[in-house]
Amino acid sequence: MLMEAIQMSDSFKVKSKVVGSYNVDFIDNIHDSIEKRLKKSNHIFIIDEKIKNLYQEEIKNILKTEVYIIITAREENKTLEYSKEIIKKLVSKGIRKNDVLVAIGGGITQDLVAFVSSILFRGLDWIFYPTTLLAQCDSCIGSKSSINLDNYKNLLGTFLPPKKIFIYHGFLKTLKDEEIRSGIGEMLHYFLTEKSDLAERINKNYEDLLIDRSSLNFFIKKSLGIKKKIIEVDEFDENIRHIFNYGHTFGHAIESITEYQIPHGQAVSIGIDLANYISVKKAFITEEEFQILHNYLIKNIPTFTIDKKNIKIFFKALSKDKKNKNNLLGCILPKEIGRVEKVFIKMDDELKNIILDYFVKYG
Amino acid sequence: MLMEAIQMSDSFKVKSKVVGSYNVDFIDNIHDSIEKRLKKSNHIFIIDEKIKNLYQEEIKNILKTEVYIIITAREENKTLEYSKEIIKKLVSKGIRKNDVLVAIGGGITQDLVAFVSSILFRGLDWIFYPTTLLAQCDSCIGSKSSINLDNYKNLLGTFLPPKKIFIYHGFLKTLKDEEIRSGIGEMLHYFLTEKSDLAERINKNYEDLLIDRSSLNFFIKKSLGIKKKIIEVDEFDENIRHIFNYGHTFGHAIESITEYQIPHGQAVSIGIDLANYISVKKAFITEEEFQILHNYLIKNIPTFTIDKKNIKIFFKALSKDKKNKNNLLGCILPKEIGRVEKVFIKMDDELKNIILDYFVKYG
Repeated sequence: MLMEAIQMSDSFKVKSKVVGSYNVDFIDNIHDSIEKRLKKSNHIFIIDEKIKNLYQEEIKNILKTEVYIIITAREENKTLEYSKEIIKKLVSKGIRKNDVLVAIGGGITQDLVAFVSSILFRGLDWIFYPTTLLAQCDSCIGSKSSINLDNYKNLLGTFLPPKKIFIYHGFLKTLKDEEIRSGIGEMLHYFLTEKSDLAERINKNYEDLLIDRSSLNFFIKKSLGIKKKIIEVDEFDENIRHIFNYGHTFGHAIESITEYQIPHGQAVSIGIDLANYISVKKAFITEEEFQILHNYLIKNIPTFTIDKKNIKIFFKALSKDKKNKNNLLGCILPKEIGRVEKVFIKMDDELKNIILDYFVKYG
Repeated sequence: MLMEAIQMSDSFKVKSKVVGSYNVDFIDNIHDSIEKRLKKSNHIFIIDEKIKNLYQEEIKNILKTEVYIIITAREENKTLEYSKEIIKKLVSKGIRKNDVLVAIGGGITQDLVAFVSSILFRGLDWIFYPTTLLAQCDSCIGSKSSINLDNYKNLLGTFLPPKKIFIYHGFLKTLKDEEIRSGIGEMLHYFLTEKSDLAERINKNYEDLLIDRSSLNFFIKKSLGIKKKIIEVDEFDENIRHIFNYGHTFGHAIESITEYQIPHGQAVSIGIDLANYISVKKAFITEEEFQILHNYLIKNIPTFTIDKKNIKIFFKALSKDKKNKNNLLGCILPKEIGRVEKVFIKMDDELKNIILDYFVKYG
C-alpha cells in the first residue's frame, strides 16, 4: 500500500468555474509551508482555537506576528452573527481588499472562512489547511460553504473554493477515533460510487488505519480523486454531483433524530446501508450484493436504536429533504455494486415498512 | 430627442462572467410584465414598502397572492441583520432551492435582494424592476451588491447580477426632484468619461427633465450603454472599471462630512467638478476646459459649505479610500474633455490647498 502512495502524484489541480483552478498539495513539512505563507505581506491567518492549543510548535511563528485571529469553530458558531464577529476581528487587523485569508482548521473553520471570503469586499482569495480527516478527504474540494440560520441547518452558503489547499497528515494524529471513523464513512461513500477494491481495502485495514494515521493519506487521495472528477463537471451541484448524496439523505435524517450523537460520516455509513437495503427491496440489487456491501460497512456502523416510536419523526425529517419532488423522496440508490443512480420513490407505507424492517434487523 | 429614443433598441444584453448574460428591457406596460412573472410558479416578489404604497394599482395582482414580502428599504437596513429578517420571511413563505426572487424597488432593495440571492441556498436567480432614476440609469447593471457592517459602509457584498431587468419609466413620476437630480449626477458622470454631446444636452434640457420624466429614458439608455461596455470587460472592478470612480472618491468624502445631506449623485457632481479643478492645477487640462465642464455640471451642484475647519476631516475621509496606495490618493482625473485616467497623487499640503481653494471659490 505504501508503495502505491509514493507512486501517486503528491499534488493535483481541480478545475473550477469560480476561481479557474486550484491546487491540492500533500505536504510533509508544515513549518516550511507556513513560513512561505508568512512571508507574504497580505496574508491573514484564521486559526481554530483547538489547533492553536494542540499545535503550538507548528504554528509558533504565526503566533509571533500580528497577522492572525483565533476562532471557535463549533456548530453553534456556523452563523451570520459569528461570521460578523470574524469580519470585525479582521477589520481590527486592518484587512484590505487584496488580502488573502489562510484558514487552519476543520470543516466548520472552512465553512466560516469560505463564507467570510465570499462576502467581505465582494470576495477575497483564501487558502486552506484542512486539519480533520473529513475536511482532508472530502470537504476541502468542491467549493461549498454552509452556514446555519437559527434552526435551519446549512440554509445559507456560497460556492467559493480556496485558491490553494495543503494537506498535512500530521494533523490527523490528535483526532479522536470517532473522527477517524467519521472520515472513513465519508471515504467509503465515495469508494462505493465506483467499481474498485477500495472499500474492501478500507475494511481489511480498518483497525490499522485508526492507529497508523499517515497511512490514511493513500485513501484521502483516492477519495479526492473520485470527487474531483465529478465536481469538475458539476461544481454547482445541479445534476451528476447529486450521486454524492448517496447515504446522505438517510444519514442526515439519522443525525437529526439521534440529535447529532452519531458522527456525520458514521451516520452516512448507516445511510448507505439503509439505501442498499431499500435497493434490495426494490429489486435493484440482489440480497447477495447487499451482503457484500454490508460487510464493507459493518465496522464503521456504530450501535444505535431507532424504533417504531421515532420512525414517524424519521419520515418527517426525510420529507424535508431539498431533493424531494412533490411527495417523492429523491434518493441515490445502488443499481449494482459500484454504480449508483438518483431515484424518486414514493413516501408510502411500503417505504416506511422497509425502513422499519431495516432498523429492526440492523439497528 | 424623442425620435432618437424611439429608434434606439428597447432591449439589450449584458455579458456577465457570473450568469452568462442578462437582459435589460425597457417596458411601457407594467401590468403585462408583472402578470408574466406572476404566472411562474416559482417566483417570489420582494417589494419596497414605498412602492407598495405609491403603486397600489400597478402591483394589485401581486398583493392578491401569497408570493410576496414587503421590505423597508432604507440605508439603516442595508445590514446582515436585516438580510436575515428577509430570509426568515422568505422561509416562512416556503421558499425552495429553485425559486426566483423578483425585486421591485431602488438601489437599497437591489442591494438587499442581490445579497440575499447570493447567500440563500448557495445562490438563487433574481429579477429586478428598478424604481429610482439612480437604479435605472446606473446600479441595475454591473453585478455589485453592497451591505454595511456597523459603521463600515459597503464593507460587505457580492457580484450577482439579476437574470432580467425591466425598466419602466412610470416609476419615475413619484420621485422627488432631488432624486432626479441625483440620478442626473450619476448620468453626467458616465457621459463625461466619453467624448459626446450628452452632458451638454443634459444641461440644455435640465429643467424639462425634472418635469417630463419619460424623456429621461433616452439618457438612461445612453448611460447604461456606456457602463455596459466597461463592465463587460471588467465586471469585477479590477482595472478599467475604476474610471467610473470619477467624481466618486471626492463625492464620498463630501457625503461623509456633510452627513449624507447631499444626495449621492449631486455629491458626485461636486466631486467631478473638484477632480477637474485638481486636473487644472496639475496641468492635465486647461482652465478653459475646466470652465466648459463646470458649466455642464453647475445646474446639478447644490449650495454647500465646506470650510477650513472641516478640510481636515475631508482629508481624513479621503485617506480611507480603498483605492489608495501607501500615502497616495488613487483618483480618476480628466486628461482632456471626455478622457479620464487613474492618477495617484500625493496627499500633501499642496493638494490640501487646492481643495480648500476650490471650496472657497465654488462651495
